[in-house]
Amino acid sequence: MPMGYTVVPLAQLTDQLERLPGVGHKSAQRLAYHLLNMPAADADAFIASIRLARDTIHECAVCHNLADSELCPVCSQSDRDKTTICVVEDPRDLAAFERTREYTGTYHVLHGVLSPMKGIGPEQLRVKELLSRVAKEDIAEIIMATNPTVEGEATAMYLGKLLRPFGVKLTRLAYGIPMGGDLEYADDVTLRRSLEGRQEL
Amino acid sequence: MPMGYTVVPLAQLTDQLERLPGVGHKSAQRLAYHLLNMPAADADAFIASIRLARDTIHECAVCHNLADSELCPVCSQSDRDKTTICVVEDPRDLAAFERTREYTGTYHVLHGVLSPMKGIGPEQLRVKELLSRVAKEDIAEIIMATNPTVEGEATAMYLGKLLRPFGVKLTRLAYGIPMGGDLEYADDVTLRRSLEGRQEL
Repeated sequence: MPMGYTVVPLAQLTDQLERLPGVGHKSAQRLAYHLLNMPAADADAFIASIRLARDTIHECAVCHNLADSELCPVCSQSDRDKTTICVVEDPRDLAAFERTREYTGTYHVLHGVLSPMKGIGPEQLRVKELLSRVAKEDIAEIIMATNPTVEGEATAMYLGKLLRPFGVKLTRLAYGIPMGGDLEYADDVTLRRSLEGRQEL
Repeated sequence: MPMGYTVVPLAQLTDQLERLPGVGHKSAQRLAYHLLNMPAADADAFIASIRLARDTIHECAVCHNLADSELCPVCSQSDRDKTTICVVEDPRDLAAFERTREYTGTYHVLHGVLSPMKGIGPEQLRVKELLSRVAKEDIAEIIMATNPTVEGEATAMYLGKLLRPFGVKLTRLAYGIPMGGDLEYADDVTLRRSLEGRQEL
């Protein structure tokens, strides 16, 4: 663009939008124009919703899921099986389990995985909180539901080692071929895991 | 999601984000978590950039392009050929022409196209402003650079009719095959236009 062409505040807004995950330059421009042309009431509502979410959402006192009161929506349900904890990386994983409508236990949200490369150690995660929860509460089973990535695996292993002394049952999600997946396109590791974990019909 | 699961302020923020153009439900969720987890200073900067853009950007007094002072960056350049006006639908089209670094005239931004279906008539566009500009200023040529869509064509035709009495030269962008395009995939209308508009080598 020729020097002097830029409308500065628009370029700044576009820059800000471009920093958002999954937003490229073209989308950022489109979003900037949209935010500029929105009726004032809509723009105010948009900004208010960011502020409200940031001001009112914090971590659940028990499981560290996102919550807008002391307990998160899961922990405040009385019919949950409080003896089972499903350990997940972040609140989106928790939401995925909730969508199955299958799991009736509680969760523990780590807010990340161990990653020495990114400087994320146990202190950056809610590990201490998990241990004190297991020490205090009457827990029967802990399901490690971190992602099947190198970091997710390492985190599950690490937590397993810390939790073993408590004598609770420790389990890991099953690995295998995804439903509706195509064997032909499954990677070697997944196929091998699906053989190892085969079950009787 | 089971009833009672939702963290309300997060759902509201996700809803707001989902209304943005090109943002689906999954992206809206990802953006919501991102906005929630951003450092406070970054969130403030993000919101401030929306507010600043909305508060300071208005239409250029001459061409109705976006501007943060009385004249837009193009109209405030003294070396522009003020006798040529390129009529575009919106500021993004203007920015596209500026990127070519080829055009040295001025612009007129309509802020839309005629669309009876959407209730957009000449009063909703900057048509009156274009006519008074042509009446007052010394204009030699007006290039109709609306998009090659049904609505863009209709708008160019309509403006052409209004502008003809002023005795200025009226031109339309050339139609044809796009550079780097593949003839095999060009649509019939484009191919026909590229034949009609063929030029001597």
